[in-house]
Parts: sequence; structure tokens; C-alpha cells
Amino acid sequence: MAASAEQELGTSLNLKLDANGLITAVTVDADTHQVLMVAFMNPAALERTLATGKCTYWSRSRQKFWVKGEESGNIQQVVSVHIDCDQDAVWLKVLPQGDGGACHVGFRSCFYRVVEDGALIERP
Amino acid sequence: MAASAEQELGTSLNLKLDANGLITAVTVDADTHQVLMVAFMNPAALERTLATGKCTYWSRSRQKFWVKGEESGNIQQVVSVHIDCDQDAVWLKVLPQGDGGACHVGFRSCFYRVVEDGALIERP
Repeated sequence: MAASAEQELGTSLNLKLDANGLITAVTVDADTHQVLMVAFMNPAALERTLATGKCTYWSRSRQKFWVKGEESGNIQQVVSVHIDCDQDAVWLKVLPQGDGGACHVGFRSCFYRVVEDGALIERP
Repeated sequence: MAASAEQELGTSLNLKLDANGLITAVTVDADTHQVLMVAFMNPAALERTLATGKCTYWSRSRQKFWVKGEESGNIQQVVSVHIDCDQDAVWLKVLPQGDGGACHVGFRSCFYRVVEDGALIERP
């Protein structure tokens, strides 16, 4: 379904949800500009993120809210929330707290590898 | 389905596709660090992107490859391609060509609005 003019040019949140009722969230370190992770939010998760200033995602695997860093201490403090033209994605600028790790594998960012000449090379 | 250790730590591309056979692509301006757009790629689109050095997405609405800027001249020249832990998302750093517009609404980035106090405010 195409986005409406209201979605593209309006001043109110009118999210375009996917088949699972979600939007894509891209989380970027406000200082280093590194993309930390890509995850999902439902409208309530975005609402909680905006209300608390802490990134709150929707875990598809566990089917529940997921306050990033709630257990590890690596809370993502929200600096700004940007929404795209058709309102199916948000770009969050954050200040990672704790030791800053965003990725369960142990790196600061989930994007710790680059693709070069057909191979993946670790470059955190 | 959880990602395998091979997907997380291996050196070979082994994409984790969603129900539509796609991964998420986050495209960032290598100079300004602005997130330009969020789109989708299937394995062949990623292959074309890597082979040509021009961002090539999969258009879900048109069900075909979409070389960004092919018509407008705003080609996205690839600087680097980063893949995340479970290989279901890529982060592309690009140098936008032409007038640099990534968004069909007319802005440089699709994320031309921020969410503040419940309202969307234009801030390209």
C-alpha cells in the first residue's frame, strides 16, 4: 500500500505497519555515527521509547517488549527520533550507556563485519 | 529462527532471509552520516550491489530490482557494506551522486522529520 500524502507530509504520527504490526528501527550512536543495530518496534514500543527516553523494541522471538540494556546496563538513551517518509521506519540517535555493547555477540555494534571480495571481514 | 554461530562468526555470506526472502538495507551518507533510507534487498540485489558498486534494492511494490538513481541520476555509489550479526540486515555507506536526493518526497534523506512532543517536525 502506498503511503498517503498525510503520512508523508503531515505532522502527526500515523505509522505504516508491516504484516506483523511492526516498523523497522535503525539505532545509531549519536557520537560515533555507527549503526548499532536494526530491530523492530510496534506502536506501543515506540510510544514507550518516546515516553521514557530509553529504546524499547518489540522482540519478535519472545513476543514482548524489550528495553535494550535492561539487564546488561547498556541502556540506549534517546537523543532524537527521526521518521521516514512513509512512516514505516524510525532512525534513533542514541547515547549508549554502560559499556556500550549493543550486540549480543560482544561487539559495540551488530555490524562488526564488512563484505569484501565475497568474504566477511571483522571490522568492529 | 535463531542465527547460527556460523552466521554470527563465520566469514561467508549466509543471509537470514525474512518470510518474503528479503533482508533490510540501511543506507547512510558516508560524508554526512545521515540515514538516507531503509529498503530491502534479496540475495541477488545484494550481489548486484556488490558487483556494480551501485545500490540495488528489491522493490516490494513493483517486484523487481531497483537501481537507486537509475532514472533520477541520484545513484548511490557504495563505499562499504557492513553486515549484522545474524545476517538479516546490511548497512551501506554510500556517496550519493547527482543532486543527492534519496527521497521521492524531495528531500536528501527519507528521514526529514523528527518526533517531538508527539508531533512530527520537519528537520531535513
